[in-house]
Amino acid sequence: MGKKVVIIGAVALGPKVACRLRRLDPSAEIILLDRDNLISYGGCGIPYYVGGDINDIEDLQKTTAHVLRDQAFFADYKGIRVLTRVEAREIRRREKRVRICHLETGREEFLDYDKLVLATGARAVRPPFPGADLPRVLTVSDLHDAETIKKLMATGKIGKAAVIGAGAIGLEITEALTDLWGVTTTLIEMEDQVLPTLLGKCIARVAAKELEKHGVSLLLETKVMAIAEDGDTGRLTVHTSRTTFDVDIVVLAAGVRPNTELAREADLALGMSGAISVDRRLRTSDPDIYAGGDCIEVRNLVSGENTPMALGSLANRQGRIIATNISGGQSHFKGTVGTFCLKLFDFAISKAGLTYRQARETGFDPVYAVVSQVDHAHFYPSSEMLYIALVADRKSRKILGIEAAGKNGDAVKARVDTVAVLLRHGLDVDEVCSLETGYAPPFASAMDVINNAGNALDNILAGSNRPVDAADFLYEFARKTTRVLDIRGEKEAEPYKEKYGARWLNIPQNQLRRRITEIPADEPLFLLCDTGPRSYEAQVFLASQGLTNTRNIQGGLAMIKVTEPEFVS
Amino acid sequence: MGKKVVIIGAVALGPKVACRLRRLDPSAEIILLDRDNLISYGGCGIPYYVGGDINDIEDLQKTTAHVLRDQAFFADYKGIRVLTRVEAREIRRREKRVRICHLETGREEFLDYDKLVLATGARAVRPPFPGADLPRVLTVSDLHDAETIKKLMATGKIGKAAVIGAGAIGLEITEALTDLWGVTTTLIEMEDQVLPTLLGKCIARVAAKELEKHGVSLLLETKVMAIAEDGDTGRLTVHTSRTTFDVDIVVLAAGVRPNTELAREADLALGMSGAISVDRRLRTSDPDIYAGGDCIEVRNLVSGENTPMALGSLANRQGRIIATNISGGQSHFKGTVGTFCLKLFDFAISKAGLTYRQARETGFDPVYAVVSQVDHAHFYPSSEMLYIALVADRKSRKILGIEAAGKNGDAVKARVDTVAVLLRHGLDVDEVCSLETGYAPPFASAMDVINNAGNALDNILAGSNRPVDAADFLYEFARKTTRVLDIRGEKEAEPYKEKYGARWLNIPQNQLRRRITEIPADEPLFLLCDTGPRSYEAQVFLASQGLTNTRNIQGGLAMIKVTEPEFVS
Repeated sequence: MGKKVVIIGAVALGPKVACRLRRLDPSAEIILLDRDNLISYGGCGIPYYVGGDINDIEDLQKTTAHVLRDQAFFADYKGIRVLTRVEAREIRRREKRVRICHLETGREEFLDYDKLVLATGARAVRPPFPGADLPRVLTVSDLHDAETIKKLMATGKIGKAAVIGAGAIGLEITEALTDLWGVTTTLIEMEDQVLPTLLGKCIARVAAKELEKHGVSLLLETKVMAIAEDGDTGRLTVHTSRTTFDVDIVVLAAGVRPNTELAREADLALGMSGAISVDRRLRTSDPDIYAGGDCIEVRNLVSGENTPMALGSLANRQGRIIATNISGGQSHFKGTVGTFCLKLFDFAISKAGLTYRQARETGFDPVYAVVSQVDHAHFYPSSEMLYIALVADRKSRKILGIEAAGKNGDAVKARVDTVAVLLRHGLDVDEVCSLETGYAPPFASAMDVINNAGNALDNILAGSNRPVDAADFLYEFARKTTRVLDIRGEKEAEPYKEKYGARWLNIPQNQLRRRITEIPADEPLFLLCDTGPRSYEAQVFLASQGLTNTRNIQGGLAMIKVTEPEFVS
Repeated sequence: MGKKVVIIGAVALGPKVACRLRRLDPSAEIILLDRDNLISYGGCGIPYYVGGDINDIEDLQKTTAHVLRDQAFFADYKGIRVLTRVEAREIRRREKRVRICHLETGREEFLDYDKLVLATGARAVRPPFPGADLPRVLTVSDLHDAETIKKLMATGKIGKAAVIGAGAIGLEITEALTDLWGVTTTLIEMEDQVLPTLLGKCIARVAAKELEKHGVSLLLETKVMAIAEDGDTGRLTVHTSRTTFDVDIVVLAAGVRPNTELAREADLALGMSGAISVDRRLRTSDPDIYAGGDCIEVRNLVSGENTPMALGSLANRQGRIIATNISGGQSHFKGTVGTFCLKLFDFAISKAGLTYRQARETGFDPVYAVVSQVDHAHFYPSSEMLYIALVADRKSRKILGIEAAGKNGDAVKARVDTVAVLLRHGLDVDEVCSLETGYAPPFASAMDVINNAGNALDNILAGSNRPVDAADFLYEFARKTTRVLDIRGEKEAEPYKEKYGARWLNIPQNQLRRRITEIPADEPLFLLCDTGPRSYEAQVFLASQGLTNTRNIQGGLAMIKVTEPEFVS
């Protein structure tokens, strides 16, 4: 018999370790155990099961060849022993054994190990307000939760819902409830924007507007104080810091917390974040115990800080590394840049690295550019607008983060995935300008939007592009401090001149040279065009004529339209 | 007056230099000249104009704001003087002036310059066979060619065409003729595959099958000997090394040659390839003369060799760099990894870096993996298969190239664009395994196809995965040397057992452990599953049981289906 490997947790990382290890070491004895009876499933698919894109919950548990990944599958296909409804209760490190409990019978026993893997994951946080544990206050942590919500929906009696937390899962479940089930959903978030740990304010505004466009009520900077249940009807009353309203269910999506009890009780080192500490080989402070997935903290390669990062993509990559190392190989997990993507109704949202705010908090001196440009050649019939925010450090010019949104999800993600490589390797803005992405009119522009994001940031760093983002513009314009100089054609500008009167100047770009004297010399002006490059060009020209008090609206009218649709109509 | 900059050539690089320079240096006197009357157009859009995706040829000359980029545009919007129908005849470097000729009048004059930019591009090669210059033997170099072909097509009298050269332009024009106009097209290529300088044999086979599926006759390893015209009907007879046939038109797509006459006569250094040599600042051997685009040679960052690279995407990036340098900045063009993409009927094809063959010729010891996997999570309803070939050097493990094909063009290109960054920075296979691409079920798998391509190559390099590609498998299986062990389910295997009889063994993967004795011990076997990972897993298991004479068919049945559809039916 080969070495004995016990793996605690059988959702994502656990099965990955087990299967890869089996391929590397046919003689190893591999035991995979889980508290649950449902194992090895695509947890990130839960919102799509709730939302009806995926009909059968077993689809989340099947291989690409449509085989259900149950105990028999692991035994017959993989030669891996799986124990379900079994809880690990204690790690005895000196004896190298784990005390487990068979939950159905209460029987306890010990499993010896040569190597132990902790894949204990994370669980949904239940905030400490009264009513957080009511039966209709649900979480979306596992397949059982998914079944519960979907069954409730299928009764046809759920008309209103509240989702607490506008992180990724909160947004995905909001879409699922709203889109398929037609539930009137209120999304509640403590911070001043959606996806607060993931996006800067510009792309977050795009996401917020997409939610509102689909009828979601968004309550930002709002705290839930209590939830009360009507004993007769089962209806819930949600009391928040702003308002009180009734709903049929509440979904809690207020983040997750690493499951570290086993590790802590075994005196394994935990990090500042409270998650399990691991080295680059993904070993805990005990070299015979590995850990990965949602229960560990990982190094953010941009900020240098260690944090938990609950991403299924990382769990799988880490699983492969752990298996390689257990079987005697050398494989390292160097850290993460947190690449992430999300479908939100008709939009896709993606990011990697740090937001502007996170970069500042980390100690950088960040600068950002926002651009809008179609994904394919503008003369090619099928193209969709992409909105990109790019953050760099002023002094080192190192790229710190990227965020993107747009309707063509594959195209949105593509730009972020590419820049994620630059982030991982600490490269600078010039590398974004010169990114060599494939060009053919059906798929890209000769100067792709991602190159132009780099170019815009390069121009901002050089001081020739003096920008204002759409959100700041909207705020300042509403306060009536500054006028707009619209350099688009007269016809395009007409409705805005009507709406905003003398606050909306219009000189088409091709008339700027001869009408320069019409522009008030000292007055601050916002320069506007369709997507931003022409207003930048105008800014440079005006500066050459001594008119330097201008700011160029980043991403132009296209960005304003997705930031504040009412501005336009 | 500021510095005087003359730019020769006004299609892609020339206008880019001019516009960026104007923004950086409002006082420069910028003159942009071109032999042609049509300037500043998206040349890569020509096949889509011919093929009807773009209706109006002016769309290729318009800005994103739908303004035609003609002389007036450059004057009014940009403050740039454009001279059309003007040919540069001679560069007098010592005097820093260019002799030009106004082609309409024949009048010559001199233009002084402080800095000169050569953006002279490339022209279509006309091979030296008899008949290559007949009027209906056309090229697709410029908008005039595009108009000529489209007008001919619109007569309704073109039923048959031959396209000579199966490079990118040959394929794009073949699609345009076949798809919109229903022309019966024969595509002739001297080499043994389509896209011979761009793809290895695996992905090239996918492209070839896509052509054939749409009715294109493909003649590989075929040389055109002569083209003869029937004086009465105008019909052309194409004589090739294999066959002779009649067509209504011939399109020559036999490559392009850099336009270097001006540079050569001015004694500027040319490289081994015959194209103009430039340094990293894109200066020629005369520091006051810059050059870029299709007329220069650039460093391939993977092979280290210098070659011309006629890509509109590079021309635009180089244009920006030249303008920065002329205006006193410091910007470098470090080289290229040749990222490329192409729409081919329902497929997209993309590549970066070297093919296996090119890597071998360059002196590497290349190894490649081929994988097939759906682009989105397999349990998510909308997903398309992606086929990826990844090449690395055996010893250094450095990635050398990637090729991809699939129906979701944005997804195909995304994987190649991401790996292109690794190629540019000389990174190794481990970085492909750990690429941090965004994961959400609507857009990717937790282990994306690109990670799995890295994993497969890692396993091949480790010796645990002993592969055969689909093309080699098909060749050997046809010679009846080796049998197949199909480890899919009995139902899936049944039609193949019927078709191939005793040469097709079937033991489902979950029965392998107990039926191991049924497998002949010394016989070489090809292992087959749907897409490859399970046959790899089976291979590892069989090896642990002493059965080491197996090869695992890379990309599985999915890859066989797109390589040789007849094998399956």
